[in-house]
Amino acid sequence: MDITSHTHHISQQYNIELDDIRKHLSEMGGMAQRQVNDAIIALVDADITKAEQVVRADKTVNSMEVSIDEECIRILARRQPAASDLRLVIAVTKAITDLERIGDEASKIARQAIAMSSEGLAPRGYVEVRHIGGLVSRMLQDSLDAFARLDIEMAENVVQMDRTVDLEYGTAMRELVTFMMEDPRSITRVLNIMWSLRALERIGDHARNLAQYVIYLVKGEDVRHTDLDK
Amino acid sequence: MDITSHTHHISQQYNIELDDIRKHLSEMGGMAQRQVNDAIIALVDADITKAEQVVRADKTVNSMEVSIDEECIRILARRQPAASDLRLVIAVTKAITDLERIGDEASKIARQAIAMSSEGLAPRGYVEVRHIGGLVSRMLQDSLDAFARLDIEMAENVVQMDRTVDLEYGTAMRELVTFMMEDPRSITRVLNIMWSLRALERIGDHARNLAQYVIYLVKGEDVRHTDLDK
Repeated sequence: MDITSHTHHISQQYNIELDDIRKHLSEMGGMAQRQVNDAIIALVDADITKAEQVVRADKTVNSMEVSIDEECIRILARRQPAASDLRLVIAVTKAITDLERIGDEASKIARQAIAMSSEGLAPRGYVEVRHIGGLVSRMLQDSLDAFARLDIEMAENVVQMDRTVDLEYGTAMRELVTFMMEDPRSITRVLNIMWSLRALERIGDHARNLAQYVIYLVKGEDVRHTDLDK
Repeated sequence: MDITSHTHHISQQYNIELDDIRKHLSEMGGMAQRQVNDAIIALVDADITKAEQVVRADKTVNSMEVSIDEECIRILARRQPAASDLRLVIAVTKAITDLERIGDEASKIARQAIAMSSEGLAPRGYVEVRHIGGLVSRMLQDSLDAFARLDIEMAENVVQMDRTVDLEYGTAMRELVTFMMEDPRSITRVLNIMWSLRALERIGDHARNLAQYVIYLVKGEDVRHTDLDK
């Protein structure tokens, strides 16, 4: 099954349309990823300008979702795609929902950064934000690359990475609770870090979803909710 | 535009297929809603048996998502639906993703209930869980009803309710932070309540998404990310 060759249709226009949704998905993914990276920097460096930039960029990501969705629906209505083309279009409509929500989570982190700047800096907890943020950003990058290249091995690796992120998230949360108990004055600040970590963990979940669409696209089977080891 | 009359196709089988995905969506919605209500009861009454039931039920919701998704893809591939039928199928594929995530959030609340039972009860915070839980459960009910009846007014009302939930969530969080600061020994318990409230708030977001698909389905336009007042 050669799924990378979407350029073999007789209709040249149809080929262009299919290439376009992949290209636009990739652009939207790049935008969402920039938002995530900038949100992490905004939080760790207390960079308000960057944080406000992330919040503003969310509108662009949202409008990209709407326009790619319309492109997909147009293709479904006019071209009546079959087999791997149909799976591609469906996978793209799903992927853009996850990318849009990644943008939402990045905005939440940016808003935490803005909220925290008014309360001074909390050195504790940033190590975790940096670390988990780095992992999640890498997952997102890899899942987008896996989508672009239809690289199933890379996609499966992202699914694995999500488990690591979930474990590290749990550990970080326990440490932060201990820290709050030792120093109750830090509660508000530590809570902000916890919300940010939770947003990062959710971004990891969305990146895992993206990777699973790649597996679905290539293998033609639904791998959500099934055990990867099987 | 008569969108409720999906039973006007020459192919009797096609009519049945379209009715089926709506029926199955409604069943999956009912299941997700039961999970949410049971999770709230499990938390408020520290009912471990119910909590474990909710966690187990998540598998059923997950497998419903996969099977309805397959039905939708089959219809897209074989029937090549147009206009309102196409919008219906697309709306259903999106709605099931939200329902599946509602199930995930309900499971999280149930897991908090299990975790909390080992730490004794925290009377503070349950008022908020009960109150916000009630609102969110109502939103979910209404959005599912709106989907079944294609009732746009009801759908718009759900979108409005989501703003109320967001506001009440913010108020509850601030109160809980104050409470933690007054009594640092309560931190772990109050955090568990906070996670549960956050899960409820996200369930509200998903219910709002469902309502927006109804508006999209009936009006044929994308209302996500646009101001409702416009």
